[in-house]
Amino acid sequence: MDIKSFLPYIEQELQKQVSRLDQPRTQPFHEMLTYHMGWTGEGTGLEATGKRIRPLLVLLCTAACGGDWQSALPASTAVELVHNFSLVHDDIQDNSPKRRGRDTTWVKWGMPMAINVGDALFVMSNQAIIDLKQNYPAEIIVRAAEILHNTCLELTRGQYLDMSYEDRKDLRVEDYWPMIAGKTAALLTASCEIGALLGGADTDKQEVYRSYGHYLGLAFQVQDDILGIWGDESVTGKSAASDLVEGKNSLPVLIGLGKKARFADRWVRGPIQPQEVEEIARLLASEGGYGEAKEASIQMTDMAINSLREADPQGEAGEALFELTNRLLNRDQ
Amino acid sequence: MDIKSFLPYIEQELQKQVSRLDQPRTQPFHEMLTYHMGWTGEGTGLEATGKRIRPLLVLLCTAACGGDWQSALPASTAVELVHNFSLVHDDIQDNSPKRRGRDTTWVKWGMPMAINVGDALFVMSNQAIIDLKQNYPAEIIVRAAEILHNTCLELTRGQYLDMSYEDRKDLRVEDYWPMIAGKTAALLTASCEIGALLGGADTDKQEVYRSYGHYLGLAFQVQDDILGIWGDESVTGKSAASDLVEGKNSLPVLIGLGKKARFADRWVRGPIQPQEVEEIARLLASEGGYGEAKEASIQMTDMAINSLREADPQGEAGEALFELTNRLLNRDQ
Repeated sequence: MDIKSFLPYIEQELQKQVSRLDQPRTQPFHEMLTYHMGWTGEGTGLEATGKRIRPLLVLLCTAACGGDWQSALPASTAVELVHNFSLVHDDIQDNSPKRRGRDTTWVKWGMPMAINVGDALFVMSNQAIIDLKQNYPAEIIVRAAEILHNTCLELTRGQYLDMSYEDRKDLRVEDYWPMIAGKTAALLTASCEIGALLGGADTDKQEVYRSYGHYLGLAFQVQDDILGIWGDESVTGKSAASDLVEGKNSLPVLIGLGKKARFADRWVRGPIQPQEVEEIARLLASEGGYGEAKEASIQMTDMAINSLREADPQGEAGEALFELTNRLLNRDQ
Repeated sequence: MDIKSFLPYIEQELQKQVSRLDQPRTQPFHEMLTYHMGWTGEGTGLEATGKRIRPLLVLLCTAACGGDWQSALPASTAVELVHNFSLVHDDIQDNSPKRRGRDTTWVKWGMPMAINVGDALFVMSNQAIIDLKQNYPAEIIVRAAEILHNTCLELTRGQYLDMSYEDRKDLRVEDYWPMIAGKTAALLTASCEIGALLGGADTDKQEVYRSYGHYLGLAFQVQDDILGIWGDESVTGKSAASDLVEGKNSLPVLIGLGKKARFADRWVRGPIQPQEVEEIARLLASEGGYGEAKEASIQMTDMAINSLREADPQGEAGEALFELTNRLLNRDQ
């Protein structure tokens, strides 16, 4: 099973959901959403849409539990729409001018319009869940909606923590996990849990898929943090050390701060300048920032793989889940 | 039945919903929400919470259809949370420093945090709907959720139209109705429809309650527009003519623009200054802006009352609905 074969179905269902705004008077509004989703405007294509990892997880988990993945398509787009809602608002909150190599929504249409674009994507994620009613009993839809809503609250918690950390110089590694549990892991967790639910798994099995998604999310974020400082720019497509310049409270940085040594001294003195990035990255590595983060990444990856083994996903979709997991966690980018 | 007797129940259920963020690490985040809701910080009290008209409508419609209003409490808070989410984002989008006489959320905690506060209120509205599962079958919850989500999309459409009108000088009265249908009427419509649904009304009856909410919302907004230009400042609590200074595309203004006479000439030349407000308000009235808007207000009010009569709401709750409608539509403030 080539997971790429799912992508056109996901894209088609996403376009159907977003087309709710393709109405008289709101065409330009609709276009803001199709631009953000990577379908219209400059630089469209695979790079602009993102990898659709979350909907892929939903569909693979559904199929690996013995369910019909096509019936689960609306749910797969629900999690992707939540993801994109959070990206649009995040870009405003972080004042980020670029996303996936293109101007962000607020750069193109201004902050007030961009807030509304995020809100609309959020609404559509809710509507997509209700669309499951064509294929599932109401009890299942209520449960899927409940999982998604609880996850969205975790997202806002993670977002709050991330923003509240910005001016703090006393952060510790313990502050890291609840933040990324909300910001990154929660939605991957929900993708796997909802996938298992729609695949007909019992609650114990759903819980195991949930664990898998959780550790996958944590491992994924830790790896992203490592690549954000020591990644190969030619592979990741962004300046490897940009996380240092941006002052991002990533795991390696919090590990470095805990050492209260030379890296910590430099970090609390103010923004890292581009010309000192290479030196600071080396310094952080020499004080354990790289090795200990790598260790955490390996631990989380092991826990993800172990959970997936316990889940015992069936058939070609099961194999594809292992493949996707390995690809995500051993990735260069 | 004194509708004031509902208010403590609504407030308690709202606090329960918002308390989802009353957790370790997110206490300050929780406080941002309790401040916006009018429960904490400076100037708390009835003025700060707003009138809770939408949850009152839900509960009264439920009871007037023969249902148990206490079972419907979570739904009543869902619509109020949607309303408050939209206010928080609206204040950012409009750059408004004050709401209900107090500093707005973005003024107190900054724009990025305020976006997240709105997002969290939105999430909680979804969670509140799911809480109906204690008292209703899953099919009813899915239908209530569907009504709410469709309404939220209408809100984003209305918000888009409102923002897209800002720099336009060619607006007509026809552009007014779709904007306020989304911005104001949609949520009142949903309140009445969900109330009827939870009260056990059949789909025909739900549709009549829906119409009632729709015209109530339109009448309410037109009246608000009239008061925003010719209201008594000592009663409304805000400078009567502030809508003119703010350049708001209200119904009287669009009527005035349609006359292509002296008011229109002045309006398109740029912002109205505070010292000319009295003269411009008189000019607009003399060209029909007041009379025709008043006529529209009376028409919409009649349609609301007629729909309510057709709905034939029962018992004390039914009487209270007529009373509330009259109070809302013959109000001085």
